[in-house]
Amino acid sequence: MHIELAALAGLPMIGPGDDLPALIVDGLDRSTFELLANDVVVITGKVVSKAEDRLIALDSIQPSARAVSLAEVTGKDPRLVELVLRESSQVIRARPGNLLVRHRRGWISAMAGIDRSNVDGGDEHALLLPVDPDGSAAAIRLRLMELTGVPLSVIISDSHGRPFRLGNTGVALGAAGICSVRSLEGQPALFGRPLTGASIVPTADLIASAAMLASGEGNEGRPVVIVRGIDVTASPRPASDLIRRESEDLFGQPDHAYGD
Amino acid sequence: MHIELAALAGLPMIGPGDDLPALIVDGLDRSTFELLANDVVVITGKVVSKAEDRLIALDSIQPSARAVSLAEVTGKDPRLVELVLRESSQVIRARPGNLLVRHRRGWISAMAGIDRSNVDGGDEHALLLPVDPDGSAAAIRLRLMELTGVPLSVIISDSHGRPFRLGNTGVALGAAGICSVRSLEGQPALFGRPLTGASIVPTADLIASAAMLASGEGNEGRPVVIVRGIDVTASPRPASDLIRRESEDLFGQPDHAYGD
Repeated sequence: MHIELAALAGLPMIGPGDDLPALIVDGLDRSTFELLANDVVVITGKVVSKAEDRLIALDSIQPSARAVSLAEVTGKDPRLVELVLRESSQVIRARPGNLLVRHRRGWISAMAGIDRSNVDGGDEHALLLPVDPDGSAAAIRLRLMELTGVPLSVIISDSHGRPFRLGNTGVALGAAGICSVRSLEGQPALFGRPLTGASIVPTADLIASAAMLASGEGNEGRPVVIVRGIDVTASPRPASDLIRRESEDLFGQPDHAYGD
Repeated sequence: MHIELAALAGLPMIGPGDDLPALIVDGLDRSTFELLANDVVVITGKVVSKAEDRLIALDSIQPSARAVSLAEVTGKDPRLVELVLRESSQVIRARPGNLLVRHRRGWISAMAGIDRSNVDGGDEHALLLPVDPDGSAAAIRLRLMELTGVPLSVIISDSHGRPFRLGNTGVALGAAGICSVRSLEGQPALFGRPLTGASIVPTADLIASAAMLASGEGNEGRPVVIVRGIDVTASPRPASDLIRRESEDLFGQPDHAYGD
């Protein structure tokens, strides 16, 4: 099995209303890289948000009393915390430097995925996540297929921290044309013992992590990665299927036992 | 930036004392694939464990009272739970179907990474993790370089579940010749705002996740993946550096605030 990843160079800064798929195809046309059938196009949520005009001026935000209180605990800007609360359904943890919430769409992550860094307009703006990333992925996919004439999949990616390990790894916020999460249940294992319920492959998240290797970080700014060689024959499932139901959260249920 | 991943086909079943690097090089010799300078060789912990004879007959294990009690809570085999306890320094969570522990080496994962599935010898054996995966990675790397004459990096991989998302993603248990975790601290961001402390890139974990896309799962059994195109110029850091210190665990500290 052979897989290739290539970051698209030369994408311009993305702004509200931009035809992101057209800009991606333009960028590819200027490169030596051509989209082929069954390629997966991984796009960071950040540029999708910019195209969807999810940039908010912090000066326009009046923080609530709860936002001010959580801002004191966490050391975050109260206006940013107010936006986090508006985007979220639940505060999971608040401590100095860290505000972990459940986004209204189910993702559990720091600051509801709201980003102040790398945003055109400087410190005084915040960039919210796309409103409906699975929907955005579907729309971008259709437009890319219209422009290129080849069947493609699209993943809208972000990165989340991990409770027990350092650094952020990739997650799929949205996906279209790909089976985001696949169960191996019932498939025979190597020595006949059936695989357990844990045998779930979060394909779209693995692709989002792999794409981070090609996209670079920080000032490199390559938000589009083409992934080739993924088996996309399984029935598509949206990225929202990757989210554990609240009742299945590792930290969402009462303990049956708790050792030392 | 262009990255390629290829799974090595045709590796034989690995047993105690096998010269794993030699078998990998033999497998490559029979394929059309050649190791090049700066390739990263990703090997699942499972085959390293087999080569290091970490297979334990469950019949030889006498479960303690605590193991029996935790086995009742979790529904796991008491002998397996006994092994988990011997490998661990702390039980994090125990509930039906799920026993989450801190391994003595620091990893927090289900069942201390002990595997009953896909193990030669059937149900009555358990496979423990390698004793010192960073050390194993270093030894395998030296031997691979000796056999091939090219500078390489090695990652020993496993997969861990996530508290809030479905499916397992890749983690590096051991690494040699690669900077497992890199800080972008101080690097300028795109619009001059410095990146925050969260800007840590867990390169070795991202590679382990990417390798899962190439290796397949379940009955496919391709435990070695070659990754090409990774920048390996940064000073090496072991995979143990990827583990959060206990005091920094997301769920290891008392809350400063807890909202709903």
